[in-house]
Amino acid sequence: MSRGRRPEHSREKILEIGAELFTRNGYHATGIKEILAECGVPKGSFYNFFASKEHFAVEIIQHYQSIELERWTEQLERQQGSHFEKINMILQAETERYSNAESGTCGCLLANLSGEVSQASPMFKQAILDSINRVIQDIERDIQICQDEGSVRTDIEAKAIAEIIWDNWQGSLLRSKVLDSVEPLRNHQLTFMKLIAR
Amino acid sequence: MSRGRRPEHSREKILEIGAELFTRNGYHATGIKEILAECGVPKGSFYNFFASKEHFAVEIIQHYQSIELERWTEQLERQQGSHFEKINMILQAETERYSNAESGTCGCLLANLSGEVSQASPMFKQAILDSINRVIQDIERDIQICQDEGSVRTDIEAKAIAEIIWDNWQGSLLRSKVLDSVEPLRNHQLTFMKLIAR
Repeated sequence: MSRGRRPEHSREKILEIGAELFTRNGYHATGIKEILAECGVPKGSFYNFFASKEHFAVEIIQHYQSIELERWTEQLERQQGSHFEKINMILQAETERYSNAESGTCGCLLANLSGEVSQASPMFKQAILDSINRVIQDIERDIQICQDEGSVRTDIEAKAIAEIIWDNWQGSLLRSKVLDSVEPLRNHQLTFMKLIAR
Repeated sequence: MSRGRRPEHSREKILEIGAELFTRNGYHATGIKEILAECGVPKGSFYNFFASKEHFAVEIIQHYQSIELERWTEQLERQQGSHFEKINMILQAETERYSNAESGTCGCLLANLSGEVSQASPMFKQAILDSINRVIQDIERDIQICQDEGSVRTDIEAKAIAEIIWDNWQGSLLRSKVLDSVEPLRNHQLTFMKLIAR
C-alpha cells in the first residue's frame, strides 16, 4: 500500500452521509460542497459515482428505502405474537429509536423530502412517489394479514387503512419535529392503532 | 391626490402575498427580494412594517391562522345536521377547494413550514407550535361536542383524537403534494373519519 494514499471512498458510505444530511436539513438546503466536506471526498470522486446532486438524491431515496424495508422485515421475524402485536411492538421500538436520536434528526427522509417536492424535478418527484407507494404496498400486505387473523377491522379495505397509517405516521413525524418530542409518535402507536383494531 | 404617488401598501396585502409564497416555496427558499417584487413594495416600506423576514413569517403564521379559524367557524354555522356531519361536509368542501387550486399550491402553510423547523429560530418554531396547538384545541372542542351528541367514539379521549385528526390531515396534505392529487385528502375525509365515528 502506498503511503499517503486516500482510503477508498465507499459509494455506500457517501449515500449514508447524504441521507443523514438530507434528513436533517432537507434537499435544497444541503449543498454539494457540504456533502463533499462531510464525506471527505474530492469533487471528482463524487461525480465519478453520481451524475448530479439530483441523481445522488434519487439514489439515496432508493438506498435508504431498501435499508428501512430490510430492517422492518428483520424486526417482524424477531417479534412474537399475532401480526398486529408484532407491528405494534415495532412501532413502539421505532418511537424509542427516535426518542434516543439526536434532537433535530427526528423525522424520516421521505417526510422531509416530500415537503420539498413542489420545487423538485420530475425525476426526483417520481423517486419519492415510487418509494412512498412501495411502503404503502408493504403496509397493505401487513394489514391484509392482520385482517385475515382477525386483529384489524374489515369494514375498510386494507389499502385505505395502509394509506391512512402512512399519512398518520408522516403527520406525527412532522409534529414531532415541531414539538421536539416523540409524543405524537407514541400517540400514533397507542391511539391510532386502537382505531383500526378489531 | 398627487400624480405618480404609489398606492398605499396595505400591511394585510403583504401578509397575504407572503403566506402564498411561503406555502408554495417554503420559508428558506423565499427571499426578501422575491417578496418585495411580488408585493411591489420598496424595501423601506417593508421594513417599516416588519423588523425582519423572521418577524414577517411569525406575523404571517398568526394572520393566516386567524383567517383559517374564522373560515372554519363560518362554515360550521352555515352547515346543517349533527356536529359530526357538519365537520365531514367542511372537510369535503376543503378537499374540493384544494382540488380546484393551482397545482403546487396544494398544502397548508403550517404543513410546509413545519418541515423546515429544524433550521428555524426559536421564535419561528414557537409561532408554529402555538399555531398548531391552537388548532388542535379547537378540534378537541369539536370532537368533545361530537362525543356528547353520540356521533364519535368515546373510548379515546377527545384530545388524543384531535391530535390524530391533525396529524392525519397534515400527512394527507404532504402525500397530496407528492401525488399532485387530492386523493389522500378524500381518503382522510371518507376513511379516517369512519375510524373515529361511533
